[in-house]
Amino acid sequence: MKFVDYMQLHQQRVNKALTALLPPETLAPTDLHQAMHYTIAAGGKRVRALLVYATGQAFAADLQVLDTVAAAVEFVHAYSLIHDDLPAMDDDDLRRGQPSCHKAFNEAVAILAGDALQSLAFAVLANISDTLLPAEYRAKMVYILAQAIGSQGMAGGQAYDLAAEGQSTIDYSQLIKIHNYKTGALIAASVCLGALAGRCDDQQKLDDLDQFAKNIGLAFQIRDDILDIESTTEMLGKQQGADLALQKATYPALLGLDESKRQAQALYEQAFDILDNIAGDFTHLKSLAGFIINREQ
Amino acid sequence: MKFVDYMQLHQQRVNKALTALLPPETLAPTDLHQAMHYTIAAGGKRVRALLVYATGQAFAADLQVLDTVAAAVEFVHAYSLIHDDLPAMDDDDLRRGQPSCHKAFNEAVAILAGDALQSLAFAVLANISDTLLPAEYRAKMVYILAQAIGSQGMAGGQAYDLAAEGQSTIDYSQLIKIHNYKTGALIAASVCLGALAGRCDDQQKLDDLDQFAKNIGLAFQIRDDILDIESTTEMLGKQQGADLALQKATYPALLGLDESKRQAQALYEQAFDILDNIAGDFTHLKSLAGFIINREQ
Repeated sequence: MKFVDYMQLHQQRVNKALTALLPPETLAPTDLHQAMHYTIAAGGKRVRALLVYATGQAFAADLQVLDTVAAAVEFVHAYSLIHDDLPAMDDDDLRRGQPSCHKAFNEAVAILAGDALQSLAFAVLANISDTLLPAEYRAKMVYILAQAIGSQGMAGGQAYDLAAEGQSTIDYSQLIKIHNYKTGALIAASVCLGALAGRCDDQQKLDDLDQFAKNIGLAFQIRDDILDIESTTEMLGKQQGADLALQKATYPALLGLDESKRQAQALYEQAFDILDNIAGDFTHLKSLAGFIINREQ
Repeated sequence: MKFVDYMQLHQQRVNKALTALLPPETLAPTDLHQAMHYTIAAGGKRVRALLVYATGQAFAADLQVLDTVAAAVEFVHAYSLIHDDLPAMDDDDLRRGQPSCHKAFNEAVAILAGDALQSLAFAVLANISDTLLPAEYRAKMVYILAQAIGSQGMAGGQAYDLAAEGQSTIDYSQLIKIHNYKTGALIAASVCLGALAGRCDDQQKLDDLDQFAKNIGLAFQIRDDILDIESTTEMLGKQQGADLALQKATYPALLGLDESKRQAQALYEQAFDILDNIAGDFTHLKSLAGFIINREQ
């Protein structure tokens, strides 16, 4: 199967799972459920879901389990986008070419939709049937995902990022730390959850996969920063140059555009070296890593 | 042991567990960790933690497990208070006699502290060692707690509540639904998690305990509404009459003060009847229910 077809097939799979696992939008309170559906339906590339599938398949995971796990990480990603866009945070009116959640609804509903999407991710993971995946793997997934979200993960990264806004003193190691927390944590969790869905209980493998994913996560973020400069608003589906306007610390701002591109490439190559030392067929995961680093939007 | 001593002892236990399970406030990002500690340190009666202990002990649960589970439900309670107090929500400047989290820090940090406290609750539950509590019980706890938080639980209740503000058409059944979601869900989850910590796998017992707790939860909320009218701001640690000022739907507004008191008493008696039909020593749980219904602040 061509990778582009693989991607499309699994994007469709996770979209179906997301809709099936969300409470119906006709259910009361309807504004809250509509806000949850609105954000999930806005789509995106579903990179985190694809990481779950690609890793899980290398560990011969049950495809039905992967649907649920892939949906869980996308629920978490969606929740983080809603909260990051809030006026008190990045104050973004536009997300994926549409009004962001708090603009389409209101701030209170947006905060609650984010909260509910976070908890929904844990509910669907914990509720996978024991026959499909023993509870020990589900409990470990919950732990890893929770760590990725918390104060030493995405929430911590966003707090760092806000504190760093407009600071000219931020250095490269701080920037890496921010992005390891903000983006890397959920990317790495997606990869590890995929392996756990395939009942991987080899801690060394999980650690190696975590390191692979951290590299990809950083490369992903550098690419994001580069695209913020090089792309048009239409292509990005969000305000082009938004990072610059906020005086956000970015790789291009710190390293320059060319060095940022070299760093992304180096991280990508290191990631492949790590993967080559883990036994298994990681063809799809490698293609996905390539897509992440070369994407144009 | 006198119940007042039992309460104090277990309040101290959960306070110790909460501090031990929070990341240190000196850890970066420090503003986020300080905000989490600030909210947890502000205290409160720890009613949800006490429900965990009192139920868990009736099922001979390991006390160390109960410490963690009690901390988890208090993390969730704290997160919900932070988000409920936000300007976009109830816009409360005061909580437990202190500036609410977004006043003491800022809105962004408050939103993130709430998010991180939610995920921390799941992390600590999932991370209980397998020797102390097999993963099947931890996974079930995660599921029940996640449902209690989500769009058919606390987040849903808050969305209902905001939508109902200023509406004169809200009726008694709607008000019960709002409060079952907003307060009852976490109260019931606390009781069920206590039983699961004691390895209860009798679904009928869990269902009965859930019904007991829903009654207590409603009685708790009615008492809250009554106290909002009858107490002083100083006693409550929050603005007295705040509900009235917001034109919030309350039991006294709908039923009158006397009928509200009668309803609370009836719910309390029904709850005891349910408990009397479950085998086990529920002395502490009954005392706690009595405390909830008779408290003066």
